[in-house]
Amino acid sequence: MITIERIGALREQCDDARRRECSVGFVPTMGFFHDGHVSLMEAARSAHDLVVVSLFVNPTQFGPTEDLDAYPRDAEGDARRAAAAGVDVLFAPLIEEMYPRPMLTSVRVEGVTDGLCGASRPHHFGGVATVVTKLFSIVGPCTAYFGKKDYQQLVVVRRLAADLDIPVEVVGCSIVREPDGLAMSSRNAYLSSDERPAAAVLYRALEGAIKNVMSGERNVARVRDAAVEIVSTEPLMSLEYAEVVRGDDLASVTQLENGVEYVIALAARAGATRLIDNATFQIDGHDIHFDLYGFGTPRET
Amino acid sequence: MITIERIGALREQCDDARRRECSVGFVPTMGFFHDGHVSLMEAARSAHDLVVVSLFVNPTQFGPTEDLDAYPRDAEGDARRAAAAGVDVLFAPLIEEMYPRPMLTSVRVEGVTDGLCGASRPHHFGGVATVVTKLFSIVGPCTAYFGKKDYQQLVVVRRLAADLDIPVEVVGCSIVREPDGLAMSSRNAYLSSDERPAAAVLYRALEGAIKNVMSGERNVARVRDAAVEIVSTEPLMSLEYAEVVRGDDLASVTQLENGVEYVIALAARAGATRLIDNATFQIDGHDIHFDLYGFGTPRET
Repeated sequence: MITIERIGALREQCDDARRRECSVGFVPTMGFFHDGHVSLMEAARSAHDLVVVSLFVNPTQFGPTEDLDAYPRDAEGDARRAAAAGVDVLFAPLIEEMYPRPMLTSVRVEGVTDGLCGASRPHHFGGVATVVTKLFSIVGPCTAYFGKKDYQQLVVVRRLAADLDIPVEVVGCSIVREPDGLAMSSRNAYLSSDERPAAAVLYRALEGAIKNVMSGERNVARVRDAAVEIVSTEPLMSLEYAEVVRGDDLASVTQLENGVEYVIALAARAGATRLIDNATFQIDGHDIHFDLYGFGTPRET
Repeated sequence: MITIERIGALREQCDDARRRECSVGFVPTMGFFHDGHVSLMEAARSAHDLVVVSLFVNPTQFGPTEDLDAYPRDAEGDARRAAAAGVDVLFAPLIEEMYPRPMLTSVRVEGVTDGLCGASRPHHFGGVATVVTKLFSIVGPCTAYFGKKDYQQLVVVRRLAADLDIPVEVVGCSIVREPDGLAMSSRNAYLSSDERPAAAVLYRALEGAIKNVMSGERNVARVRDAAVEIVSTEPLMSLEYAEVVRGDDLASVTQLENGVEYVIALAARAGATRLIDNATFQIDGHDIHFDLYGFGTPRET
């Protein structure tokens, strides 16, 4: 694995790969790798000749009161894990490399950014959309891999790639969970020893909501309430939102229908630490397909 | 020359060219070709293996009261002129091909879009920036050619390509003028037989302003006033703006300095027809370089 800090050098690697008719798989990250990141790298490795991982804590997607300065970092550990996962190129630019002058250009995605995390983080997805567009321009990947934990981000990136005709396939990979169900996240490092076990209530809330659907419930408000009730049993967790929305465009729904993918998405705080989690599901007649550890089989969509 | 209507088919042509290590030159247009368009095609032809010209009257860059429906079209004549100029691929998509679903994603460029035409056309450059980003994604050109008549557009496109790390060189080509100095424009077709000769006053105004600089004037307000005064002699033309700004970022200036490129830019109406024109110039000690027919030598920048 080589580590590259400059855009020009990365472009050379990617251009060279394309000249040799090699396919390029890309995993954009903010580093502090856990098994979730590694699963994305492995998915890319299994399908592509050249695997590029970017490690860039993008300042423009953090709000002024958010955790940019505290965001956990471990450059050496990240390089070791990426190399072990078979990554070819780790792109780790400085902020000045990605933003060498004041950015006058921005990419915005409307609609799918209004609800869920977009409601409380008004500039977040604009920052994500702009930096992902830049990274796609730099790497020119055939396929890009995103974790489904940031489900709304996945929908935003899919939509911007389609709307801007960027020739990349955007693959969402299943959430990787700790043994007690907590979704892996770099931000889990913020949790105190009390908060850490409490945070697994989010997983149990998703599980409870899905059991509710399995038992025949089709009313969205009642499915949502099943999740809310479970989170409320954990005094250390404070719920920000719980929503059941359509999976492809995050549209509100009132009743669950056959053959449509839905996502139940949660955000909650443990002290100052904001955590998100979600599960996708689809009702097909008597079958119900879930993407939740312990229920469904992890799959790419 | 082949004409292509579908994005997928165009991508195949461009991907195939790149596989054969052919360079791709691109000229985005709204059609109704005149010698200005042809000069862009010839510039691309002289430098690239594959020359792609897009012909798309992009609805999102027209305001609600603007001339989208009236915009002049001549598909057959355009195909003939493009073929004669040595174009390889004419990309002429339908609106539904470029916008198959509601666009949730937009590209915006701030700052350089505030003044000049941006002041009276608030959504114009957002539409331009978004469609140009889409076209760059589809074609993946090495170099894209834009006419300097739409000078602000050239600055906007250069900035978005730099900010979004799009690997394209953006070349601005000199304005091509009618014998009386009127800048060639598809919108000249709207002019009545009275308005057509009157419109050449814009050229004379640029010429007058530049003579003013040549005579030693360095005060921007007085250079601008020289142009305004000349336009005011023509009762059929109504001036919208006349500005002298910095060429690279369109920043306001009060005094002309050595070694800096400036642009004097005009917009005026002849009846309902809105025309724009400009000239770039730079003072280098005792030399003054202009890009205006009859004064300077047409050049690529």
